Amino acid sequence: MAKRRKHQNPAHRRQPIGAPPGLILPRDGSQPSTITVFAFSSEDIYEASGVSVVEAHALVGQWPVVWVNVDGLGDASVLEQFGAAFGIHRLALEDITNRNQRAKVEEYGDVYFIVTPIFRFGEGLEDEQLCMILGANFVITFQEQPGGDCFDPLRTRIRNDVGQVRKRGSDYLMYSILDATVDAYFPLLERIGETLEDYEAAVLVRTSVAIVSNLHGVKRNLLTLRRAIWPLREAVNALVRDENPRITSDTRIYLRDCYDHIVRVMDLIETSRELGSDLTDLYLSQSSYRLNEVMRILTVFATVFIPLTLITGLYGMNFTTDSPYNLPELHWKYGYIYSLCLMAAVTATTLYYFWRKGWIGKDPNAGPPDGAP
Amino acid sequence: MAKRRKHQNPAHRRQPIGAPPGLILPRDGSQPSTITVFAFSSEDIYEASGVSVVEAHALVGQWPVVWVNVDGLGDASVLEQFGAAFGIHRLALEDITNRNQRAKVEEYGDVYFIVTPIFRFGEGLEDEQLCMILGANFVITFQEQPGGDCFDPLRTRIRNDVGQVRKRGSDYLMYSILDATVDAYFPLLERIGETLEDYEAAVLVRTSVAIVSNLHGVKRNLLTLRRAIWPLREAVNALVRDENPRITSDTRIYLRDCYDHIVRVMDLIETSRELGSDLTDLYLSQSSYRLNEVMRILTVFATVFIPLTLITGLYGMNFTTDSPYNLPELHWKYGYIYSLCLMAAVTATTLYYFWRKGWIGKDPNAGPPDGAP
Amino acid sequence: MAKRRKHQNPAHRRQPIGAPPGLILPRDGSQPSTITVFAFSSEDIYEASGVSVVEAHALVGQWPVVWVNVDGLGDASVLEQFGAAFGIHRLALEDITNRNQRAKVEEYGDVYFIVTPIFRFGEGLEDEQLCMILGANFVITFQEQPGGDCFDPLRTRIRNDVGQVRKRGSDYLMYSILDATVDAYFPLLERIGETLEDYEAAVLVRTSVAIVSNLHGVKRNLLTLRRAIWPLREAVNALVRDENPRITSDTRIYLRDCYDHIVRVMDLIETSRELGSDLTDLYLSQSSYRLNEVMRILTVFATVFIPLTLITGLYGMNFTTDSPYNLPELHWKYGYIYSLCLMAAVTATTLYYFWRKGWIGKDPNAGPPDGAP
Amino acid sequence: MAKRRKHQNPAHRRQPIGAPPGLILPRDGSQPSTITVFAFSSEDIYEASGVSVVEAHALVGQWPVVWVNVDGLGDASVLEQFGAAFGIHRLALEDITNRNQRAKVEEYGDVYFIVTPIFRFGEGLEDEQLCMILGANFVITFQEQPGGDCFDPLRTRIRNDVGQVRKRGSDYLMYSILDATVDAYFPLLERIGETLEDYEAAVLVRTSVAIVSNLHGVKRNLLTLRRAIWPLREAVNALVRDENPRITSDTRIYLRDCYDHIVRVMDLIETSRELGSDLTDLYLSQSSYRLNEVMRILTVFATVFIPLTLITGLYGMNFTTDSPYNLPELHWKYGYIYSLCLMAAVTATTLYYFWRKGWIGKDPNAGPPDGAP
Amino acid sequence: MAKRRKHQNPAHRRQPIGAPPGLILPRDGSQPSTITVFAFSSEDIYEASGVSVVEAHALVGQWPVVWVNVDGLGDASVLEQFGAAFGIHRLALEDITNRNQRAKVEEYGDVYFIVTPIFRFGEGLEDEQLCMILGANFVITFQEQPGGDCFDPLRTRIRNDVGQVRKRGSDYLMYSILDATVDAYFPLLERIGETLEDYEAAVLVRTSVAIVSNLHGVKRNLLTLRRAIWPLREAVNALVRDENPRITSDTRIYLRDCYDHIVRVMDLIETSRELGSDLTDLYLSQSSYRLNEVMRILTVFATVFIPLTLITGLYGMNFTTDSPYNLPELHWKYGYIYSLCLMAAVTATTLYYFWRKGWIGKDPNAGPPDGAP
Repeated sequence: MAKRRKHQNPAHRRQPIGAPPGLILPRDGSQPSTITVFAFSSEDIYEASGVSVVEAHALVGQWPVVWVNVDGLGDASVLEQFGAAFGIHRLALEDITNRNQRAKVEEYGDVYFIVTPIFRFGEGLEDEQLCMILGANFVITFQEQPGGDCFDPLRTRIRNDVGQVRKRGSDYLMYSILDATVDAYFPLLERIGETLEDYEAAVLVRTSVAIVSNLHGVKRNLLTLRRAIWPLREAVNALVRDENPRITSDTRIYLRDCYDHIVRVMDLIETSRELGSDLTDLYLSQSSYRLNEVMRILTVFATVFIPLTLITGLYGMNFTTDSPYNLPELHWKYGYIYSLCLMAAVTATTLYYFWRKGWIGKDPNAGPPDGAP
Repeated sequence: MAKRRKHQNPAHRRQPIGAPPGLILPRDGSQPSTITVFAFSSEDIYEASGVSVVEAHALVGQWPVVWVNVDGLGDASVLEQFGAAFGIHRLALEDITNRNQRAKVEEYGDVYFIVTPIFRFGEGLEDEQLCMILGANFVITFQEQPGGDCFDPLRTRIRNDVGQVRKRGSDYLMYSILDATVDAYFPLLERIGETLEDYEAAVLVRTSVAIVSNLHGVKRNLLTLRRAIWPLREAVNALVRDENPRITSDTRIYLRDCYDHIVRVMDLIETSRELGSDLTDLYLSQSSYRLNEVMRILTVFATVFIPLTLITGLYGMNFTTDSPYNLPELHWKYGYIYSLCLMAAVTATTLYYFWRKGWIGKDPNAGPPDGAP
Repeated sequence: MAKRRKHQNPAHRRQPIGAPPGLILPRDGSQPSTITVFAFSSEDIYEASGVSVVEAHALVGQWPVVWVNVDGLGDASVLEQFGAAFGIHRLALEDITNRNQRAKVEEYGDVYFIVTPIFRFGEGLEDEQLCMILGANFVITFQEQPGGDCFDPLRTRIRNDVGQVRKRGSDYLMYSILDATVDAYFPLLERIGETLEDYEAAVLVRTSVAIVSNLHGVKRNLLTLRRAIWPLREAVNALVRDENPRITSDTRIYLRDCYDHIVRVMDLIETSRELGSDLTDLYLSQSSYRLNEVMRILTVFATVFIPLTLITGLYGMNFTTDSPYNLPELHWKYGYIYSLCLMAAVTATTLYYFWRKGWIGKDPNAGPPDGAP
Repeated sequence: MAKRRKHQNPAHRRQPIGAPPGLILPRDGSQPSTITVFAFSSEDIYEASGVSVVEAHALVGQWPVVWVNVDGLGDASVLEQFGAAFGIHRLALEDITNRNQRAKVEEYGDVYFIVTPIFRFGEGLEDEQLCMILGANFVITFQEQPGGDCFDPLRTRIRNDVGQVRKRGSDYLMYSILDATVDAYFPLLERIGETLEDYEAAVLVRTSVAIVSNLHGVKRNLLTLRRAIWPLREAVNALVRDENPRITSDTRIYLRDCYDHIVRVMDLIETSRELGSDLTDLYLSQSSYRLNEVMRILTVFATVFIPLTLITGLYGMNFTTDSPYNLPELHWKYGYIYSLCLMAAVTATTLYYFWRKGWIGKDPNAGPPDGAP
Repeated sequence: MAKRRKHQNPAHRRQPIGAPPGLILPRDGSQPSTITVFAFSSEDIYEASGVSVVEAHALVGQWPVVWVNVDGLGDASVLEQFGAAFGIHRLALEDITNRNQRAKVEEYGDVYFIVTPIFRFGEGLEDEQLCMILGANFVITFQEQPGGDCFDPLRTRIRNDVGQVRKRGSDYLMYSILDATVDAYFPLLERIGETLEDYEAAVLVRTSVAIVSNLHGVKRNLLTLRRAIWPLREAVNALVRDENPRITSDTRIYLRDCYDHIVRVMDLIETSRELGSDLTDLYLSQSSYRLNEVMRILTVFATVFIPLTLITGLYGMNFTTDSPYNLPELHWKYGYIYSLCLMAAVTATTLYYFWRKGWIGKDPNAGPPDGAP
C-alpha cells in the first residue's frame, strides 16, 4: 500500500480555515485547463479543442446543445471566467476546485450543479470526481485528468449520430454522461468480486499474512466506493423525482434506469462487504481450527513421550547397587524387556485415552453433514 | 465450490461501457428463443408452441387473455420484434437481456415490466430471473432456460380450468405466475433450515474445516437470496398499493397475500442468517473451549512430569562418590525408595494444586444450570 | 435438542408449488375439529360443545355475541363449511391451515382476520398460532391443539360475568382473547430471564460445553420469539389506529394497553438478546483469560525446570575422567552442592524475571477498580 | 451480583394470565400507602401528611394546584379510592401496581397518565418507577419507596417560593417533577463514565477475571438504563408536540428543555455502551497480545534448551567403550569442552534465528507511530 | 491518557438535582468574562474590547450588525445582564453555563439560540462549545477560553472588508462563524486519517500493546467527535429548512453549503470508525496468525526432539549387563552409530510428516492471489 499524498487524504481541504466562502484556488497538483467543445444539432456537429471560455460561451445559443469539457483544474482564472460567462455560483466553483466532494445535485437558480465520483485502478483504487453544470442548452464538465476518461464511446456516438443523443436536449446529454460514469463502476465491482472469490478459495486451504492484509485492502476499497456512491444514489433519486422542467419526463425514464443501475451497484458493494466480513470470520474460524489441531498434535506427542522419558530417567539413576532395595529392576534378567513393556503399556494407555477423546484415529474432517448446500 | 463462469459474476454487464441505452445484445451462453402461447377465455383455450412473434401478437385481441412465454434469450432480433409488436420500451428490452437485474416493477406507458428472481439448486445455488410484461390482455414471460420451470402446475390448472385463472384477466394471470415463483422459494429455505440444524448438531460435537467451510457456503447462499428477494418485496408492495386500474381490486387482495408470502420468506432468510451467525459464534466458543481443554491437559501433564524427570536427572548425575558431600542419597540403603517417595510427594502436591484450581477431578461439564430452556 | 419434525420446519408449506390460491388442505398431524360455542348477552349465556358449523352459525343473530372455538384442524371440510356459512375468504382459510404464518390483521370485506402466535415450553419452545375471525357479532378462533390453552380464565370470567366482557360486543371479546395470549408471553420471558441470570453466574466461574450450547439454545428461542412477536406489534398497532367502526373507540383504549404490553414483550426480548450476546462475549473473554492463565502456568513451569534438567543432563554425561578437562566438577568435593546451588541460582533468576513481568507473586485479580457499579 | 428477587425480574407481571383488564392488586413486597398533600397558590401553601384520599380530593378546587404524593403501593383499596375520587381509568391504576412498566404518556379523557423510571445505586442498580396523574389543577404521584426520593429540593422550592413553580399551574408542577427525575440520571452516568475510565486504565496494564466481570456488570446496567430511558424520550417528545391545551405553550418550552436533557442522557448511554464494547475489544486484543507474548517466551525457551538436553543425553548414553565406534567423543581429551562448544553453537544458531524473526532483542513495543492522537 | 478532571466528564452537570430551571451558575474552572464588540456597516467599522454589557447593548440599533463576543464564563452576573439587556431566555443562559451541551438550534421568541461544538488537540482531544445568540441585528458568541480561537481569519476579513460579510446582515455573520467552526473540523480528521494509515502500516508488521492502546484512543476520539457533530447536522439542517424570515433565502444557500460540509465531516468520521474497526479485526487476524506460527514452530521443535531425547534416555539406562537380554545394543560394535541412525530415521519421519502437512518447507506466505486490488 503506497503512502498516499497529502492532498489525497479524503479530509484534506484546499481552502484555509476561515477563508471567505467561494474562494477559488487551483487544485493542488493539477495541470492547466484544456477546454474542448462539442456543439451539435440533429443535423450537424462542431468540434474544437483548446478554445477559450469566451469562444465556448459564444457557441451557446447558436447550437441546440453545447458540451464544454474542461480537463485540468490547475488554473483558478479559467474557473473565474466560467463563473462570469455562464453565471455559475461561486460556491459551485469552490466545490469544483476541491477534491473529495460528496456526490450531489444542487440547483443554483436555473442551472444544476452535479458532482459524481469516478474511480480507476492505478496503484490501488484512485478516485476522482466529475463536476457537471447543466444549463438550458449546454453542459459543462470538469475533470482533473485529461486523457483516458470513460466518455470516448459517448463522443463516438455523438460524432456518428448513434442512438438518440443528437436528437435530444442538454438534459439527455447530461444523462448520457452520468450513465457512462455509472456503467464504469461495474467492471470495478466485477474485479473485486473475482478477487473475493480467489481469497475465499485461498482461506480454505491456508492462513497467511498476505491473505489477511489483501482482504483488508479490498474491504478498504469497498469502504471508499460505498462512501462515494451512497450519496450519488440520493442525488440521482432527487433528480428523478424533481419536478423541474429542465429535465423532460422522457429523459426522466432514462434517469430512472440510471438510478436503478446505481442501486444495483450499491447492492453489489453491500454484498461484497458482507462477503468480506464473512471471509474475515472464516479466516478466524480456520485459524482457530488450525491452532487447535497444532496444539492437539503437540499435546498428544508430549503426553505420550514425557512418561517414557521419565521411565528411562528412572532406570538411568545411579543409586548404589549395594542395597537390594535400590533399583532392583536393573538386576533382573529381563529388566530391559520389562522396561520396554512398561513403556509400551504406558503408551497404549495414553493413546487409548486420546482415542477415546476422539483426538486420534477418528478423522475429524470425516462425515460433516453432506456438503450441499 | 466450483469457480463460477464470468457471466455469472453478479457485477457482470453485457453492454460495454458507454453503449447507447437500450442496446439489445443476446444474453451470453443462452439458447435461441422458443415462443409458446396460451390463449384462453373461460370457455375455451388455444395452445401452440414454436410460433413467431407476429403470430403471437395476432392472438392478442382475439382472446381475453394471451400468455406468451419465451424460453431462451440468445436471439436479439426476437426481442426487437417483441418491442415493435407489443410496444415495449427499449430499456425494458435491454434489462431482459441482462442477467443479475434487481427485482422490480416499472410502468412504461400502459404496460408493466416486472422482474422476479428464480432459484434452483444445481451445483450450488443458481439464480435466474423471470421477466414479465403485463399488458391490457396479455402477459409475456421471458426466461433463459426452457425446461423444468415451476409453471407446469399453473399450465395444468389453466388447461383443466382449475381455480379462477381462466375466469379472470391478465392481471390475475400475472399474479398466478408471481405466486408460483414465490412459492418455489419455500422448499429452498426448508432445505437451508435443515442444513443449519444439521450443522448445529455437528458443531456441538466436533470442530472441523468442513463445518466451517460449509457453513460459510450456506451464509453465502443466504446473502444471495436476501439480495435478490429484498427488492422483490418492495416491488410487490408497490404493486399492491398502486392505484393503476390495470390491476383490479380483487386481484389486489391476492397480491397482498403474495406480498405476505414474500415477507415470510424475508423473515425466514433473516432468521437463518442470524442463526448462521450464531452458529459461527458457537463454533468459535466451542473451539476456544476445546483449546482450553487441550492446553489444560498438556499443562497438567507437563507440570506433573517435568519435576519428576528433574529428580531422575538429579540422581543420574555422575559426581564422584569419593566425596561424602556428593549425592549421598545414592548410597542410602533406601535411596531408591526415598526417591520414589519424593516423586510421589511432588506429584501429589502438583495434583492437589490443580485439583484446588478445579482443573482435574471436578467434571467441568457437570452441573450447568438445568438444560432447559 | 430433539430433531424437529418436517412440518415444524418454519419454511414448510403444506400447499404444493403452483397450487391454486385458497387451496384448503388439512394441517398435517392435526386432529379432527371440535367446535365449541359460547353465546352470551349481559343477562344470559349459552354454552355447547361438539356442535356442527350449521348449529354454530344459527346462534349468530340470536345472541349479541357468539364465540365459536375450533380445536384441531385435521378436517378440510369443516373449514370449507365455515367459509360458506360465515363468508370467510378462501385466502384466510388457506392461512388457517398453514402453520408458521406471520402474525397479522387483515380486512376481508366486513370481517377481520387475525393471526397471533402462541408458545409453550414442551421439549424445547413449541410455537403454535391462533387464528381469529372477528365479525359483527361473532368471534371464531381456530387452534391446532385442543386442551391446555390459556383461555380458561377468560371462559370462567364469561361464565361468572366478571369484568366487562359480557356487557360489550364482539370487539371486546376479540381484545380479551388477544390480551390473554399476550399475557402468556410474560412467564416465558420471565423463565428465559432467570435462565440467563443462571448462565451469567455460571460463566463467571467456569467454561464448559454445556454453557455454550445451552446459551445457544436460549438465543435460538429468543430468535423464534422475536420473529413471531415483531409482526404482532405492527398488526395490533394497525388495529389501534384503524378507523373501522367495527372496533369501538372504548375498546381501542384497551387495545392500546394490549399494544403497550406487546411493546414491553419486544423490549424484554431485545434486552435478553443483547444480554445473551454480552454473555457470549463474556464467555469468550473468560475463556481467553483462562487460556492465558493456563499458558502462563505452563510457561513458568517449563521455563523454570528445563534449565535445571539441562544441568542434571550435563553432569550425567559419561565423558572419560582420564582427561582433567572433562567434567572436572564431577571430581570436586562439593561438586554436588555446587550443582544444587547452580540450579537454585538459575531458578531464582528465572523466578525473578517472571516476578518482574508480574506473572507470579502479584495476584492478577487483586485490585481491579472497586467492584461497583 | 446478588440474585434478584422474583418480583424484580423485568418480565414479572403481578396479574395472573387471563385476569380481567384493570385488575388492581397490591404490589408485592410494597408497604402500605402514605398520602402527603401540597396545596399551594402564589400567596399561600398548605401541607399535610397521612391524609385520606377523600381529604386529598377535597383540597382540589379550593387551591389552584394540589400535589398529592402516594408512597407505598401495598394497598389496593387506596388505589380504588383514587380511581373513584379523581376519575382515573382502571387500566392506569393497573399499570401503577405493576413494576417494570415502560415510560409512557397516555391520555385518559381529560387527565394525563405519565410513567417515568427512577434509578438508584443500592447493591447494584435498582430501578423503580414514578407514576403521575396530571389533572386540571392537581398532580398525583405514586412511588413504591417512601424516603430518599429526589423531590426534596423541589418541595423546598415550593415551600420557599423559589423559581416559578408557585406562580404557575399543575402542568408546570408536572414539568418540575419530571425535570427532577431526569436530572437525577446525570450523576448515575457520571459515575458509570468514571468507572469505564478506570477500567480502560486497568485493561491496558493487566487482564483479570474481575475486569471482565465488572465490565459486564456495567454493560448490563447500561442496557437497563437504555431500555428504561429510550421510551421516556418518545413519551416526552409526544408531550412537547401535543396540542392539548392542558399544557400551556410556555410550559412547553420548559418541556422542550427537559426533552433535550433526555436526549443528552440517551447520547451518554449510547456513547458509554460503545465505549464498553470497545473496551471488550481492547480486552480481547490485549489478551491475545499477551498470549502471543507468553507463547513466544515458552517457544524460545523450549527451542533453545531442548537441543541442549539432547546433547547431554547423547553423551550420557552407556554404549560400551570396547568399540572405537561407540561414542569416541567421550574419550577425547577436550571432549567436555567440545560438547560445551557444540551447545554454545546450537544456542547461538537458535537465538540468531529468533532474532532474525524479531522475537528477541528488538523491543516489540518500541516505535509505534507517535502516541498522539 | 491523562485522567480527565471531574468537570470534563461528559455526564457532569453544574446545576444540582432539583435546582430551579434556568439557574445560572458560573462555569467551573472558567475565567471571568471579557466582552469584545465588532459593530460594522458596509462603510465603517467600530471595534472595542473590555466593554460592559450595557455599552455593548447600546451599539445595537446604531449599527446594522453588531457582533458581541464573550470569552470566559466564570461570572454569572454578566450572563444575567445579557439576559436582561438582550432578552435572552433563562433556559438558554443556563445552557451557556453548562459544558457538554448537544449541538442545537432553538428559537426563543425572535432570537435563535445556537450551540456548536469546538475541538482542539491539546493533551488528547479537548472539546469546548460555542454558544451563539442570533438577533435581528446582532450576534452574541460565548466561549470558555479566550485566546486561540478559529475566528481570527474571520475578524481579519471583517476588518479588511474581504468577501461579503460587511455587506450583509446578522444572519450571514452567524453563517460565517458557523462555517469557520465547521471548517476547523477538517484538519482534525485529516490528522486522524493519517494516524490510522500509520497504524495500518504498523499492524501489518508487528503486534504490540502500544498499537492496540493507541488505536483504542483514536476510536474513542472518533466516538467523541461523532457524538458532538451528529446533532449539529440535524440542527443546521433545521436552519436550512426553516421558513423563519430572520434568515434570508440567499444566506440559506450558504447554510446549505455549510450543511454539506457537516455531512462530509460525518461521512469522514463514519469511514474512519469503520476503518478503525477493520483495523481491530486486522490486528486480531494478524495476532491469531502469529500465534499459529509460534505454536507451529514450538510443535515442530518439540515433536522432532522429544523422541530423540527418549532414545538417548533409553541407552542411558543402567540395566546390569550381566543379562544378555538387557540393552544388548550397548554392546554392539556399531551401537552408537546404530543409535545415531535410529535418531536420523525418526527425525526424517517426523519432518516428512510435517512437510506433508505443509508446516515446513512450503512458504505459507507464497502465492496468495495476486496482490491487487
